[in-house]
Amino acid sequence: MFNQVTILGSGLLGASLAKAIRKENLANSIRIWARRKATLDSCISEKWCDQIEEDLIKSVYKSNLVIICTPVDSIAEIIKKIAPIMDQGTLLTDVGSVKEVICQVAKEAFAHSRGKFIGSHPMAGSEKSGMKFADENLFSGRSCIVSKLDDQDKQEVEVISDFWEKLGMSVYELSPYEHDQAISFFSHLPHFLSSTLAKSLDQKPDKWKNISGMGLKDTTRIAEGDPELWKQIFLMNKNNILQAVEEWEKSLNEIKLYLKDSKNEKIYSFLKDGMNFRKKL
Amino acid sequence: MFNQVTILGSGLLGASLAKAIRKENLANSIRIWARRKATLDSCISEKWCDQIEEDLIKSVYKSNLVIICTPVDSIAEIIKKIAPIMDQGTLLTDVGSVKEVICQVAKEAFAHSRGKFIGSHPMAGSEKSGMKFADENLFSGRSCIVSKLDDQDKQEVEVISDFWEKLGMSVYELSPYEHDQAISFFSHLPHFLSSTLAKSLDQKPDKWKNISGMGLKDTTRIAEGDPELWKQIFLMNKNNILQAVEEWEKSLNEIKLYLKDSKNEKIYSFLKDGMNFRKKL
Repeated sequence: MFNQVTILGSGLLGASLAKAIRKENLANSIRIWARRKATLDSCISEKWCDQIEEDLIKSVYKSNLVIICTPVDSIAEIIKKIAPIMDQGTLLTDVGSVKEVICQVAKEAFAHSRGKFIGSHPMAGSEKSGMKFADENLFSGRSCIVSKLDDQDKQEVEVISDFWEKLGMSVYELSPYEHDQAISFFSHLPHFLSSTLAKSLDQKPDKWKNISGMGLKDTTRIAEGDPELWKQIFLMNKNNILQAVEEWEKSLNEIKLYLKDSKNEKIYSFLKDGMNFRKKL
Repeated sequence: MFNQVTILGSGLLGASLAKAIRKENLANSIRIWARRKATLDSCISEKWCDQIEEDLIKSVYKSNLVIICTPVDSIAEIIKKIAPIMDQGTLLTDVGSVKEVICQVAKEAFAHSRGKFIGSHPMAGSEKSGMKFADENLFSGRSCIVSKLDDQDKQEVEVISDFWEKLGMSVYELSPYEHDQAISFFSHLPHFLSSTLAKSLDQKPDKWKNISGMGLKDTTRIAEGDPELWKQIFLMNKNNILQAVEEWEKSLNEIKLYLKDSKNEKIYSFLKDGMNFRKKL
C-alpha cells in the first residue's frame, strides 16, 4: 500500500503499529525514529523495523506516510518541525488522544506545506506501556477517529481511514472539536473516575485490599495507565473534562438522593438505565 | 466432606456453587430448594442436583450444610424460618454481599437453635445472572469473607473457611460490621460509580457511543449487573455506601482542583498513587 512509512516514537503504540503494518503488509519499508539512540538500537533487530534514523527531519524524507506516536504533549512540536520539509503528497497523521490543540497547530503549520495532515485517534492502548508490550493485534476490532483540517481533504481522509481499516479498526470521522468533547465523556471521564477511585482506596487499611473482587479490578484497570501520559491528556483536554465531570456529578447527586431517601423504584430504574447502556456497548 | 448439602436458590450463585461442590466432590448428595416449581424441575436433570425439594423447611432436614443463595434481601427472612427447625450440628451459611443486617437477624434467630450460623460473602459473581450462566469455576481464585456471630464459633468458622478454600477461594475473617464497611469501599463504591457513569453516558448522542474503547467497557462492566440485586445491596448497606461516596468525593474534589489550576506535578502524583494502588491488587 505504501512504499515507505515512518513511525515517530517506538513506545507501545509506535511499536504495535509497526508490527501491525508488517503483519498486514501495508509498507515495503518501515523506518523508525526515536528520541534516544539506545531505543533505536533496540529496534533495528526487530522484524518490524527496516531502518532507523536519529534525525527527525531526515526520518521523514521520501516517506509516503508518517505517523507520530510520541507522547501526546510532544505531537504539536513535532508537527511544527516537520511540516515545512515534507515532500509533495506525503501524508502525516498522529495517534494523539486529543485532537483540537493538535489540529489547530497543524492547520497553521500546513498552510504552506507540500504534505497533508489528517488527525487520527486510534482508540487502542493498554494499561501497560513501552515497546516490550507491543502487540500486532492492538488495533484490531477497536474504533479509530479521524479528524480533517479542511473540507478539501476528503481524499486524504479516505486514504488514512482505509489504512486504519486495514488494521482491523472501525473508523469514524469527527471534527477536532467534537472529538475532544465526545472523548472527554467516553474515555477521559472513565479514566478520571477510575484513577480517583484507585487513589481514594489507596488510603484504606491494607487488609481490606485483600478482599477486592473482579468488579474493583475492572473499574480500576485503566488507573494503571502511565500517569505521565494521562496527566498530559487531562491538561490538554482540561475544559472538556471538567465539564464532563460536572455533568456526571448530576447523575451522582441524583442516585445519592434516591439512596438517602430509600427510593426503591428510582434506584432500580437508575441502575436499569445504566445496565441497558452497557449492554449496547 | 459433607454427606448432605442443601442449596437454597438456584440462580447464578446457587447453581455455580452446586457445580463447584460436585466438581470438588464435597458432598455425597446435593439438594436444591427454589421458590418456583418450574425452576426446580429444570434442576433435577442436572448432574449437580441429586434431589429437589419444594418445601423450605423439609429441604433443610438432615443436611450437614445449608447455604442460602437467594436474593440478598430475602436471606434474613429465610434464616428466621429455618433456624428453629435445624438439626443438631447443622451449619448454615449464606452468600449475601451484606453481612451486618443478616448476622444481626441470625444472632437472634440462632439464640435457641440447635444449628449454627456463620455468614459468608464469596466475592464471586458476574454481570450475567441466572442458572444458565452457572460456572463450576466461579469461585476459584477469588476472595471470600466469613463473619461469625459469636467468639465461641471458632470451630464452625474453620469448617466453613475450609469449605470455601476447597473451592479455590482465599478466605478472610472480618466482623459483620467491618465487612460492611470494607465492602462499601471495595465493592459497592466501584459499582455505584460504574452505574452512575453508565447512566450519565446514556444521555449522550448515539454516534458518540460508537467510539467507546476498552477503558469504558471495563469501567462500566459491573453496571451490567442485575439492577434488582444491586438495588437491594445499596439499600441494605446504605449508610456505609453514602459514607464511602462522601470520602471518595474528597479525592474527586482534590483532582478537580489540581486540574482547574493546571497543577502539573500534583496531577502526576495523584495519578501515580492510583496506579500504584492498582498494581498491588
